Amino acid sequence: MKVLIETSARHIHLTTEHLEILCGKGFTLEEKKPLSQPGQYVSTTRLDVVGPKATIKNVVVLGPVRPKTQVEVSMTDARTLGMVAPIRESGDVAKSAPVKIAGPRGSIEIEEGVIIAKRHLHMTPEDAKKAGVKSGDIIMIDVNTPERGIIFKDVVVRVSDRFATAVHIDTDESNAANASYDMNTPLYGEIIK
Amino acid sequence: MKVLIETSARHIHLTTEHLEILCGKGFTLEEKKPLSQPGQYVSTTRLDVVGPKATIKNVVVLGPVRPKTQVEVSMTDARTLGMVAPIRESGDVAKSAPVKIAGPRGSIEIEEGVIIAKRHLHMTPEDAKKAGVKSGDIIMIDVNTPERGIIFKDVVVRVSDRFATAVHIDTDESNAANASYDMNTPLYGEIIK
Repeated sequence: MKVLIETSARHIHLTTEHLEILCGKGFTLEEKKPLSQPGQYVSTTRLDVVGPKATIKNVVVLGPVRPKTQVEVSMTDARTLGMVAPIRESGDVAKSAPVKIAGPRGSIEIEEGVIIAKRHLHMTPEDAKKAGVKSGDIIMIDVNTPERGIIFKDVVVRVSDRFATAVHIDTDESNAANASYDMNTPLYGEIIK
Repeated sequence: MKVLIETSARHIHLTTEHLEILCGKGFTLEEKKPLSQPGQYVSTTRLDVVGPKATIKNVVVLGPVRPKTQVEVSMTDARTLGMVAPIRESGDVAKSAPVKIAGPRGSIEIEEGVIIAKRHLHMTPEDAKKAGVKSGDIIMIDVNTPERGIIFKDVVVRVSDRFATAVHIDTDESNAANASYDMNTPLYGEIIK
């Protein structure tokens, strides 16, 4: 079964409380453009992620706000920042890496929240049924690109009727697979069970 | 057949002429530590790679000097620098990306020379015979790591009695494969034909 491959660049999810500390009391996120997952969007807000070794400026904040603040970076980013972050599924931030986030009105230091996203396949229940997989299954995705074809193993399946079917990889994985060789055409991979 | 996986970070190869412009007349590279490939070494010299959008400082120069100046970066680096570089085998720099290199005594601007290294498998003639492959063959390398197992396709084989047997991947590929999850133990992959 063919599935869309999407690259997630570094980004921040914030709680309402943290958003107000960083951007001011009563501040709310404004949608700049929608993401493929229904209801999720790129906001107009960008903040600085401050690591022990370096700062990465203007990191995009995704909306809407979430119950936990979370920073998703690539392993390359983690090294640039000077930290070691675990490879985790989104939302699983317990004992992940600490970091400072700086905004126009204030800054926060969180004890945990920085993760490197584990690659995953969002699926609608219909597509999951069609592919014969369920939430939590580990599958492989075969990607054929010029010069850098790759088979990603350890891809975790997540099924929800709130999802659109797409594989999410980070920028390191995307670059390793030459996934943006043709910016004008969506890239598809093949599920291998 | 099991083969060692090694990660190549961004680096510069220089001609004697360019080395002298950058570092001064009569300057020669000094070995800091040897690389796995016989005769190749990390030198004590570091230079700045200046792209249209950003500069990456302190990029290591590898020795010995070569017939052509070449800068090998990851795709992440190319984006940081603000350029598009082709995926190429080392030495194949015709019509690759232009760049400026800055050193303590001078700087050079080259019309071509920046590449993103195509992943490759260096082999001794003995190991190539054992594995049943020859120079130019395209094989796959299966890498099993926690969380991010990967199969690299499009790996080009190069055989020479001047080589040690090892797969070379860049930092994006290494991070995509979680290849440095255990810094204390060499990582091996399996050849798939």
